[in-house]
Amino acid sequence: MNDSYLKFVNSPFGGRLARSLGLPKPEVLRRYRADRPEFDGLIAIGAGREPRLFDALAGLIASIGMTSVAHESAGLWVPLATRHGLMTGRFEPAEAGAPGKLAALLFDASGIDDSSQFQPLHGFFHDTLRSLGKCGRIVVLGRPPEACASPRQWTAQRALEGLVRSLGKEARRGITANLVYVEDGSESAIDATLRFFLSPRSAYVSGQVMRIAGSRNEAPPPPVPAFDWRQPLAGKRALVTGAARGIGAAIASVLAAEGAHVIGVDIPSARDALDATTRQLNGSALAFDIAAPEAPAQIAAALDELGVDIVVHNAGITKDKTIARMTDAAWQSVIDINLSAQERIDDALLAGGILRDGGRIVAVSSISGIAGNAGQTNYATSKAGVIGRVESMAPQLRARGITINAVAPGFIETQMTAKMPLALREAGRRMNSMSQGGQPVDVAQTIAWLAHPGSAGVTGQVVRVCGQSLIGA
Amino acid sequence: MNDSYLKFVNSPFGGRLARSLGLPKPEVLRRYRADRPEFDGLIAIGAGREPRLFDALAGLIASIGMTSVAHESAGLWVPLATRHGLMTGRFEPAEAGAPGKLAALLFDASGIDDSSQFQPLHGFFHDTLRSLGKCGRIVVLGRPPEACASPRQWTAQRALEGLVRSLGKEARRGITANLVYVEDGSESAIDATLRFFLSPRSAYVSGQVMRIAGSRNEAPPPPVPAFDWRQPLAGKRALVTGAARGIGAAIASVLAAEGAHVIGVDIPSARDALDATTRQLNGSALAFDIAAPEAPAQIAAALDELGVDIVVHNAGITKDKTIARMTDAAWQSVIDINLSAQERIDDALLAGGILRDGGRIVAVSSISGIAGNAGQTNYATSKAGVIGRVESMAPQLRARGITINAVAPGFIETQMTAKMPLALREAGRRMNSMSQGGQPVDVAQTIAWLAHPGSAGVTGQVVRVCGQSLIGA
Repeated sequence: MNDSYLKFVNSPFGGRLARSLGLPKPEVLRRYRADRPEFDGLIAIGAGREPRLFDALAGLIASIGMTSVAHESAGLWVPLATRHGLMTGRFEPAEAGAPGKLAALLFDASGIDDSSQFQPLHGFFHDTLRSLGKCGRIVVLGRPPEACASPRQWTAQRALEGLVRSLGKEARRGITANLVYVEDGSESAIDATLRFFLSPRSAYVSGQVMRIAGSRNEAPPPPVPAFDWRQPLAGKRALVTGAARGIGAAIASVLAAEGAHVIGVDIPSARDALDATTRQLNGSALAFDIAAPEAPAQIAAALDELGVDIVVHNAGITKDKTIARMTDAAWQSVIDINLSAQERIDDALLAGGILRDGGRIVAVSSISGIAGNAGQTNYATSKAGVIGRVESMAPQLRARGITINAVAPGFIETQMTAKMPLALREAGRRMNSMSQGGQPVDVAQTIAWLAHPGSAGVTGQVVRVCGQSLIGA
Repeated sequence: MNDSYLKFVNSPFGGRLARSLGLPKPEVLRRYRADRPEFDGLIAIGAGREPRLFDALAGLIASIGMTSVAHESAGLWVPLATRHGLMTGRFEPAEAGAPGKLAALLFDASGIDDSSQFQPLHGFFHDTLRSLGKCGRIVVLGRPPEACASPRQWTAQRALEGLVRSLGKEARRGITANLVYVEDGSESAIDATLRFFLSPRSAYVSGQVMRIAGSRNEAPPPPVPAFDWRQPLAGKRALVTGAARGIGAAIASVLAAEGAHVIGVDIPSARDALDATTRQLNGSALAFDIAAPEAPAQIAAALDELGVDIVVHNAGITKDKTIARMTDAAWQSVIDINLSAQERIDDALLAGGILRDGGRIVAVSSISGIAGNAGQTNYATSKAGVIGRVESMAPQLRARGITINAVAPGFIETQMTAKMPLALREAGRRMNSMSQGGQPVDVAQTIAWLAHPGSAGVTGQVVRVCGQSLIGA
């Protein structure tokens, strides 16, 4: 819970010492606070040939109240922004000057359809990156490669991944870099996702590649009902498993702050902590062992009357051992609680129509499920299975407007990581682009974005909340 | 080129010192040698419920001449193997005994269709992993998740990734672990791929997930012509770019050893080295700058009469700088040589029908293209684009029986890495499951597998040759 190195190097004396010894200096990340403006400062706009998302971006920037400056690559931005009634200026690459004057860099690469057209990518980031301030945001927008008409266009769009992941590793200073592929026809669905990636809510989410897709080859999903950006989950009911403590309690808290009524679930032995967590959120508590055979029916019965809009499968356990030393019981209980129980509960909620149309399922996976981990064959298998669940169920749920996604936390500061051996804990903390562990609230804010009514175009995807950990597959 | 630590800790004195200091002891990897048997020793067979690949596996094991022992999870193996005329026995989990007696572990998970059926995975690897010898092989076989009929089956098959990647990280001792998804109906196409993953040829390939797929929803590809396993590329003509030195020369050498006539390409300034490489392989040399506008037509003209069967896009350059310090020329030349030139050359070879039906394209990507890398925005963008090329062109080339795949090397010992600063070089060498860098021949052997006539079912895929590097996306 306590990264004393981070605090030390951000003190006047510690900072001087770290500098003189050449030690890394992790930035104190700016996180969302209800009493501070979520969006402010200058956003630089760049673009490749024929940008297709400018209208949608102008609408977004008007709604979040940032001021844009157009890089020379984005020649069409100024007249368009003016038409939208936006204050806008031109970005002047000051040779040695004005570091930190920009809050965000936004590049529309949607029109690039050949690798010979990459010059503006270099021009824009070459000119602007040094002017981006601490905890700044980089977002590149493109088209989903697999939806491109020609191999040349697919190739060019796929190449953006290499650029964005490199920018995330290069930028440091608490800056995040993410890539959002917007399917042709889904331009109106970008706001919730771009707000998240431009906001301090995404403090520990970097190097991610997301897709916003509509209804390609399918019936259009039900329209998104009206919502209030300040309380987007008002009127929603959210089930959160493992809600008593740690990441689960943070999820419950953030969803409640966004307006949801939270129904927290945890095992009977955690009843007091669960009650304490849900009581202060004006939520409800269900003390069940989710792995018990009768649990799905019990949960369904408890939710039946009012239904549920958001289901967060957060409950999970670890029982680490090398497989040669792992008992059958340790293997089986981790698979059952972390994976099979999720399957049984969703089946019960879906079969009974208890999860409402337009609902949201978010399952907690792990970086171990992506990359594997020594001593965690059981845990990694279960968490890779969670990714399979999300990928397999998304197409089936689309017709009802239900999305299903996973978050994969990296090193998050919790009671669990506080008990790790020092060397392992320090490696986990520093081996990422932020040079520090994340906080439970970082996972919770990411889940709140996926649970948002405006995230209807995001489904079947996995988001790492890992500060762009070096570790991967 | 020279990992002196690896040599030191494998000397009698160095080994004792490393042990007493608790230092890692990388294994000297067993690599393919023409004068040693490629396959020998015992292979333990395990299975989940209703294994679907036993017949194909019995045929494979008969052809490579290994002896199988059946784990209790694979009850049906013994009668089936006997029907195939194989020598086979039963694996007895010896409590403390017989470490190193197995050469390979093979688990058929193809029939597992629910996460409640994972017990045999634990049972098999729990019982056998300690008996697997140095440089042993682990292969798990499943069904491609995305081709599964139900979400439950998809989830269960997807979960195998977490298991296999964890086994790779846990096993150490030069052991590799890979996952092969075999599409229903492609059982007859597994031999070349399983031979590769069981052979010392795959010494530095671990933690990979490959798919063998036929012609789902499409016309069947042309039948694979007969070939000789000892000279599978006999009669084939192979174009290799960047062939003068390093990894390219190793590729040329391995393809020639497999029977191919190699046409090496390199820039005119490397003409002498190129001539020396190709002369000793009885190959041909083409001194072209592949990025020159006229190069595609020149290469096409040089190959026109006899055509070409295998194209290996290996030529590439780096010009590393942070993007703020990177010149436009450095950005553009890396994109052009590493990515756009490949596109132009393939277009010329395909448009002219010079690349023959049943042909093979293999492009060299990089772990930087997967994960991004600070100081390599240009290189990572180009190498991510190579992945897009492979993914986008595979469906288009399938009807002609042409496959296109990419290899993504991790840390490979070359003249380039020998020039890296010591700390960076040591980090690159040790941060993988083999605790060492790979050799150019490891990349070359992987390419030879993809170029094999028996690899017709492998297309649109990326194989990392990285010893299961920790680094990923």
